[in-house]
Amino acid sequence: MTTVAAYAAPAAKAPLERTTIERRAVREHDVLIDIHFAGICHSDIHQVREGWGEAIFPMVPGHEIAGVVSEVGPGVTKFAVGDRVGVGCMVDSCRECENCRAGREQYCTGGNVMTYNGVGKDGEVTYGGYSEKVVVDENFVVRIPDALSLDVAAPLLCAGITVYSPLRHWNAGPGKKVAVLGMGGLGHMAVKIAHAMGAEVTVLSQSLRKKDDGLRLGADHYYATSDPKTFEELRGSFDLIVSTVSAPLDFGAFLSLLRTDGALVNVGAPEEPISLNLFSLIGGRKTLAGSSIGGIRETQEMLDFCAEHNLGAEIELIAASEINEAYERVLASDVRYRFVIDASTI
Amino acid sequence: MTTVAAYAAPAAKAPLERTTIERRAVREHDVLIDIHFAGICHSDIHQVREGWGEAIFPMVPGHEIAGVVSEVGPGVTKFAVGDRVGVGCMVDSCRECENCRAGREQYCTGGNVMTYNGVGKDGEVTYGGYSEKVVVDENFVVRIPDALSLDVAAPLLCAGITVYSPLRHWNAGPGKKVAVLGMGGLGHMAVKIAHAMGAEVTVLSQSLRKKDDGLRLGADHYYATSDPKTFEELRGSFDLIVSTVSAPLDFGAFLSLLRTDGALVNVGAPEEPISLNLFSLIGGRKTLAGSSIGGIRETQEMLDFCAEHNLGAEIELIAASEINEAYERVLASDVRYRFVIDASTI
Repeated sequence: MTTVAAYAAPAAKAPLERTTIERRAVREHDVLIDIHFAGICHSDIHQVREGWGEAIFPMVPGHEIAGVVSEVGPGVTKFAVGDRVGVGCMVDSCRECENCRAGREQYCTGGNVMTYNGVGKDGEVTYGGYSEKVVVDENFVVRIPDALSLDVAAPLLCAGITVYSPLRHWNAGPGKKVAVLGMGGLGHMAVKIAHAMGAEVTVLSQSLRKKDDGLRLGADHYYATSDPKTFEELRGSFDLIVSTVSAPLDFGAFLSLLRTDGALVNVGAPEEPISLNLFSLIGGRKTLAGSSIGGIRETQEMLDFCAEHNLGAEIELIAASEINEAYERVLASDVRYRFVIDASTI
Repeated sequence: MTTVAAYAAPAAKAPLERTTIERRAVREHDVLIDIHFAGICHSDIHQVREGWGEAIFPMVPGHEIAGVVSEVGPGVTKFAVGDRVGVGCMVDSCRECENCRAGREQYCTGGNVMTYNGVGKDGEVTYGGYSEKVVVDENFVVRIPDALSLDVAAPLLCAGITVYSPLRHWNAGPGKKVAVLGMGGLGHMAVKIAHAMGAEVTVLSQSLRKKDDGLRLGADHYYATSDPKTFEELRGSFDLIVSTVSAPLDFGAFLSLLRTDGALVNVGAPEEPISLNLFSLIGGRKTLAGSSIGGIRETQEMLDFCAEHNLGAEIELIAASEINEAYERVLASDVRYRFVIDASTI
């Protein structure tokens, strides 16, 4: 056991504060990681505030972890001390179900273990990346290529893979028209990745406030969804819309922007049920779908892809003492485009 | 112009009564069809009663038409007098849009012409199959193979193609578990067709009342959705669910029956918007989709497939004078499984 400093929410909706937690001694297949950077994901806030249901406290959030291996268990074969590595939303899964065997651990039907606000197979509560160190089974650790700085790589572990996976699954690429709904932490990575995949990329954002950024990051077009003309002009345009927003939407209006056989894939979602007229799917054989992060193998593939195309996240680096303020700014959509905690300040 | 007898609703919600209508003289590419049989589709009732919005009256419903060619225009190349033919939901389309060029006339973006309650390119209102004869452009006529009797073939023109198309598109076949939701006119054809495609077929019906029929028609399993245990037992089971019901459903419950990457495809739909929690799509990368009839080429493919596998509809043959009574029985789900009008009684 090692005592390490961390930032934790002591109770639901409470501000995060500095504390210490215990990390387990490295086991046979474990890797001890010195955390260098941890991204702040909107879902951290959802969980700290119990927006997604009852949670475990104290909670150390953080599932966008980038660091360096400082110790390995005797059975570890994939990593060595000094390796640059990342950890995302999962630190374990059943490893036996059809999905785990197929590398889709994110859809593990046996029950996967979340990086924080979860309980491991050993019965211990998991604590996330807002801390100095973390111990993770090597099978849930990925390698961060040298071409990516650790700070801009951290957000790829959730924001990056969450959009990469559906873009790949729904075949974003040359000849495909892809719209990215929402220009935030996930959306800005979706623009970069879809553009690098060769798709024609359109941003659909509430306003044109971030238009310059969008075009600079790879978008071919940028429209404001607050303008009704957008829906007239773009009717029947897209093969794929990736929605990164968690606010309630007029889904009928967005489905009307799809071509025949197009798909609107939600990686963000409102907490409340949506209202949908099924005729908006029947006319044009359209798909409304969802997608959740990605598997471990796919996360490595995503990091390699981002390294090859030099796609780090756009970040604002903060000290750990600024976490609570950063949460408020995330809720106000006032971040371009991801807060990353410098773990040396914890 | 030819005057022919027909059954028409003179006004919205009015009972159908015998009348006469004019059919146009055969043009260059037209086929005159002596109608032998016309199926009664639930959507006939929706339209007569303006459940789908404002309609055109008098209305002669009927888009499940089987008959014999009795005259052809000088430019007709595909059909000859005496040919056994069918007409489904469309009698024309723009023929120029991407979908029309790809044989997906059902998704024509230029505006297709419905068999009844529509307006043709000539500005004339269209009248459907509850009549003695109909004149249709040969490009919207399909051939009914000799192996299929005309009476049991008629319902294939809507009920058959409406389920065949999504079963093909979502790859029903050997190794796939397919559920058919609703055991009515569409559902019973979905059971037959999915079984013939080689899928493992489960019927999900409100009760077990039609279980013997379901198993006889090709279902491997039959469950009552009124029994909560059904949802426990079948959780995560299906690759594809084809929903033929237009009653409001608990979509979250039905989506939970899908495996990872599974699809729930709606060919029926409630008139009112549904309520849906998007997390039921995100967990398991699931798809909620819709599908509308099929293209002309695909309708011919369906008829050939049904002939090869000897798949006619299960019908109750009625005289035209019984149409209004049949409507009430359709609304009460009291038909096994499709009413077909003997057009010689019109």
